Amino acid sequence: MAHIDLEDVDESLFPGITGLMRYRPETAGPLGELAEVLLRAPNSLSPGERELIAAYVSGRNRCTFCCDSHAAFAAAQLDEGTALVDRVLADLELAPVPEKLRALLRIAGAVQESGRAVTPDLVRRARELGATEVEIHDTVLIAAAFCMFNRYVDGLGTLVADDPEHYEVAARRIVAEGYLGLGRGANGSQT
Amino acid sequence: MAHIDLEDVDESLFPGITGLMRYRPETAGPLGELAEVLLRAPNSLSPGERELIAAYVSGRNRCTFCCDSHAAFAAAQLDEGTALVDRVLADLELAPVPEKLRALLRIAGAVQESGRAVTPDLVRRARELGATEVEIHDTVLIAAAFCMFNRYVDGLGTLVADDPEHYEVAARRIVAEGYLGLGRGANGSQT
Repeated sequence: MAHIDLEDVDESLFPGITGLMRYRPETAGPLGELAEVLLRAPNSLSPGERELIAAYVSGRNRCTFCCDSHAAFAAAQLDEGTALVDRVLADLELAPVPEKLRALLRIAGAVQESGRAVTPDLVRRARELGATEVEIHDTVLIAAAFCMFNRYVDGLGTLVADDPEHYEVAARRIVAEGYLGLGRGANGSQT
Repeated sequence: MAHIDLEDVDESLFPGITGLMRYRPETAGPLGELAEVLLRAPNSLSPGERELIAAYVSGRNRCTFCCDSHAAFAAAQLDEGTALVDRVLADLELAPVPEKLRALLRIAGAVQESGRAVTPDLVRRARELGATEVEIHDTVLIAAAFCMFNRYVDGLGTLVADDPEHYEVAARRIVAEGYLGLGRGANGSQT
């Protein structure tokens, strides 16, 4: 149960960040817009690759709700599906990902520790492997944003959904509808 | 100099996050809106108190640009000014802040470490000292958001402004105009 009283929000129906977004629509607005532009707006990194960065950072932050959510969202949008996501979460260095994506994930891992852990060498290596300046920028900001989302979800002690089915349903909804409606009810009204 | 090529953005004029927001207006929009609602929208915590939480977290993350910026923004909006801000940054437990605010700052400090470091006891203590559920929510989200902003600014290796005058000028602008214009040029056009 969350550390705070979420009033009329039923956490069993709205676990993790989804309950917080319904509780506080004033902050849900920009948070949903940020997730949408970082993870789904047109970009030379695919939505699946960006969701993989989000899942990887959430795993390193040991945020179960966010890691399970974004792992499912990545798997739903990558050709290699769950098998690849699981390999990246288990061991980035051994996972069969393209080298450019591995270099970007290493940058994301550094950001998870501290912004100051990102070295010119990490950035140079990603660039040598074909990463663009915007891809490097977005990787850093996605990783930084999940250091926020993870702390928001765990810092308020929100409920983790135990049923794997929850994350599969959420993945279908995110792929179809995106992040902008998360702070709103099923009928689109803010609650 | 930033780790990436910010194209026509002059970092000496736009250090820290301000250059990044001009470089990537697509993400600057929700980031500016998030800062505005968290730090300046109507709230039972004053803008000065909320900026103090931002400065405290940024100090713990050793993000010089963000800490100096939000310390200046807090000082400009708190009756006790710089003297109080400096005391909080030096030692929260000895600083002459109201006990409710100290309890909220302790929660923010836990969030800086990890969302999972926020204990029911920390939350209960803040509530006993008069903190509302929304104040606890907003404290966690402000602290989490600055774990993002700090990593964004340092993860891309942006320039830190050395001149204290820079932060005083920025404080006057933030107090007068807020965060929504940060990704835009002085005339309001996006660049």
